[in-house]
Amino acid sequence: MTDRIVTACVVIIGNEILSGRTQDTNLAHIAQQLNEWGIRVQEARVIPDEEDVIVVAVNDARARFDYVFTTGGIGPTHDDITVECIARAFGVPMVVSDEIAQRIRRRPAPRDVMENRLRMARIPEGATLVDNPTGGPQGFRIDNVFVMAGIPSVMQAMLSTVGGEIEGGDIVRSRSVTAYLGESQIAAALADIQTRYPNVDLGSYPFYRSERYGTTLVMRGTSDTDLSGVLEEVKSTIIAAGEQPMMDE
Amino acid sequence: MTDRIVTACVVIIGNEILSGRTQDTNLAHIAQQLNEWGIRVQEARVIPDEEDVIVVAVNDARARFDYVFTTGGIGPTHDDITVECIARAFGVPMVVSDEIAQRIRRRPAPRDVMENRLRMARIPEGATLVDNPTGGPQGFRIDNVFVMAGIPSVMQAMLSTVGGEIEGGDIVRSRSVTAYLGESQIAAALADIQTRYPNVDLGSYPFYRSERYGTTLVMRGTSDTDLSGVLEEVKSTIIAAGEQPMMDE
Repeated sequence: MTDRIVTACVVIIGNEILSGRTQDTNLAHIAQQLNEWGIRVQEARVIPDEEDVIVVAVNDARARFDYVFTTGGIGPTHDDITVECIARAFGVPMVVSDEIAQRIRRRPAPRDVMENRLRMARIPEGATLVDNPTGGPQGFRIDNVFVMAGIPSVMQAMLSTVGGEIEGGDIVRSRSVTAYLGESQIAAALADIQTRYPNVDLGSYPFYRSERYGTTLVMRGTSDTDLSGVLEEVKSTIIAAGEQPMMDE
Repeated sequence: MTDRIVTACVVIIGNEILSGRTQDTNLAHIAQQLNEWGIRVQEARVIPDEEDVIVVAVNDARARFDYVFTTGGIGPTHDDITVECIARAFGVPMVVSDEIAQRIRRRPAPRDVMENRLRMARIPEGATLVDNPTGGPQGFRIDNVFVMAGIPSVMQAMLSTVGGEIEGGDIVRSRSVTAYLGESQIAAALADIQTRYPNVDLGSYPFYRSERYGTTLVMRGTSDTDLSGVLEEVKSTIIAAGEQPMMDE
């Protein structure tokens, strides 16, 4: 049986991530959430707040993946240009969403401040809203592209609302086990296991902590039977190498 | 005077980052280090351990940017395929580096373990070594592509050694100031400042902490005079909006 595979690309928009000033945490959160819905993040791109770059990246991503999730650049200031870029990528004009505008107007402000805030009510024509449970302006969806805020708490709130709109595929589950072993000590056995279980993705992730080298073996796949089979073999491999397998979680 | 701009792309290779299991921290470190050497990270891509994807991404990146830095996939196990992918991207065979092999052989191991470990001595023909001050196998450079480990401590050690090999451009410096203000309250003034200082990149980064919304304004550019000019204007803008500018650091 072949897996039903549904893919996604995450596009992280923002100079502050590329300069190293801000540590991105959105990718890991989006990947974990989408995985629960049966969607696999196959690529992520971090790009600057530059119009041409954003347009090209979004058009490339929406052609190559089932879904695209963008973060960043939808606030009220001059460097927030994601909305116009998405509109340009789709070749549609921007329109004002009455629903977002209403929400923005609920919080009173001087006229010039309100005017800036209302920039956030613009969406590409044909887009539908992505709710924002924090009470701020909504994000939006156009075709297979979801456009969300960059602030992690706001992005997470928005993402939490779109599960029902998304058609996921088979859900990838994982098992993992850790041992204080160098990767080389078990590399041959792991390669052999991987060959016999092509439906399971067996990854080996070395680490260095408390002045010891160790390896975490992660198995990912859609079949619980295959995952259990691989896990047992990996544990036996670790024991045969003279170490104790430590189950994660 | 036009800036001498030298660009880089960071290519992060690894399923564990895309699944959300591992939080990447390499991008922020590389970006900060390269910035000190006058190199601007213009894009980052996170891609899976898949041969065709890696080859295409590396060839795309090395054509579009002055330098490319990859992390991940150079260990001894079956899922470490970065070296063969880089060789394929450049259309050259893999060769064994005697220098890496010697270093690997210094640590004794049973024959089969040593055989696996020696996988890490393979480099693309024509590559030169990137030293690894942790004592482990070296990384390598081929043309404008630097290939480094994925473990942050090892990657950082490798990266620290390549500064002398890199020709940087004008160094981007930054100033930043924070205020408990909504972005909308100062958006118009910021846009005006940005228009008058086209050589400075003025970014506005909203946040939410201690139950208050605030904004950090970050100025980035190569001219200290321009940066100071923008900083003073931004501070005046914050004061005019009734708040106190808080200098960062």
